Amino acid sequence: MGSKNISMAVIRRLPKYHRYLGDLLDKDIQRISSKELSDIIGFTASQIRQDLNNFGGFGQQGYGYNVGALHNEIGKILGLDKQYNAILIGAGNLGQAIANYSGFRKAGFEVKALFDANPRMIGLKIREFEVLDSEEIEDYVRDNDIDIAILCIPKNGAQSIVNKLVNVGIKGIWNFAPIDLEVPKDVIVENVNLTESLFTLSYLMKENEEM
Amino acid sequence: MGSKNISMAVIRRLPKYHRYLGDLLDKDIQRISSKELSDIIGFTASQIRQDLNNFGGFGQQGYGYNVGALHNEIGKILGLDKQYNAILIGAGNLGQAIANYSGFRKAGFEVKALFDANPRMIGLKIREFEVLDSEEIEDYVRDNDIDIAILCIPKNGAQSIVNKLVNVGIKGIWNFAPIDLEVPKDVIVENVNLTESLFTLSYLMKENEEM
Repeated sequence: MGSKNISMAVIRRLPKYHRYLGDLLDKDIQRISSKELSDIIGFTASQIRQDLNNFGGFGQQGYGYNVGALHNEIGKILGLDKQYNAILIGAGNLGQAIANYSGFRKAGFEVKALFDANPRMIGLKIREFEVLDSEEIEDYVRDNDIDIAILCIPKNGAQSIVNKLVNVGIKGIWNFAPIDLEVPKDVIVENVNLTESLFTLSYLMKENEEM
Repeated sequence: MGSKNISMAVIRRLPKYHRYLGDLLDKDIQRISSKELSDIIGFTASQIRQDLNNFGGFGQQGYGYNVGALHNEIGKILGLDKQYNAILIGAGNLGQAIANYSGFRKAGFEVKALFDANPRMIGLKIREFEVLDSEEIEDYVRDNDIDIAILCIPKNGAQSIVNKLVNVGIKGIWNFAPIDLEVPKDVIVENVNLTESLFTLSYLMKENEEM
């Protein structure tokens, strides 16, 4: 692929390119220069050219980028040309919000089942999901070709659930629990730590006030 | 403060230090070396020393860090010694999850009111909140000393709500809408883009598979 040495900073910008290019397509804009892309996306034109060059020369001198082709290519780079089956563990408000977000399904990520350890939750019907018992996670993953586990649970107990998930072959974990999970090298963990995000906001507000 | 030139990379690590130090305090551990901190937090000892030196010399040679004092200091740097009043806009599952998360309140962030534009939501009682009409946001912010607005709404309409919030003096926006908001320089926006996070996961899983 030649994309092994791409820095995390570039990788984290790719979904943003993808989003902006999708917005352009929605507006039926088919061609765009790095300068115009820079104006809407906020990165410099040279950064944009450099970022996209990492993945092969998308732009043509004097023509700019073909929006549809670029959107499609970046989608492929992001792995969005595949379908992913996910399970979601922790059927609280956050878990329900994520399970029911149609945008993820449209992008190829399908939540197949919702699990909870709380006996009062097990068996509840939440939209199309019946909440399953967390004890059944391993069997379910073995039987249903699951790629991704989404963790919407408190930090206590998260690592032991992850150990089980890893044992039954889960390769991707989208983790909302405020804990740094330990996993083997061939398992990817992407963390969403809302508290860290909120504390960053308060830091920046404080700094701003003092300026 | 002498902390104006701190890079965002350092700032984004501070909440993590704060979390780990809090965990140590919960275990009644009062003193720790940068080496020990490195083992549990995963940054190198030299990075830890360098990061913390940005904010004044916390550590003492041969003694290490006083966990309680360091936790407290980093909390102050993050602005956690203050109370923040927040409103939350968008009372769907995600909004409810965030409004009801007790950890934010414990950290000094209190959601005072929940707003929604959907007539079917307005007036609903969600735990201690009655969902208020989004039309009342500006009056409410003016009358109630609100610091932060949390946006849990779709991207359409988000910018126009933000314009109103800015007009009535909101200085911090915690934005879950998948849109880059335009705000004046004295207003801080902290984005949580779940789709970007999910796409990063799929990218890394794909890269991993190909290695």
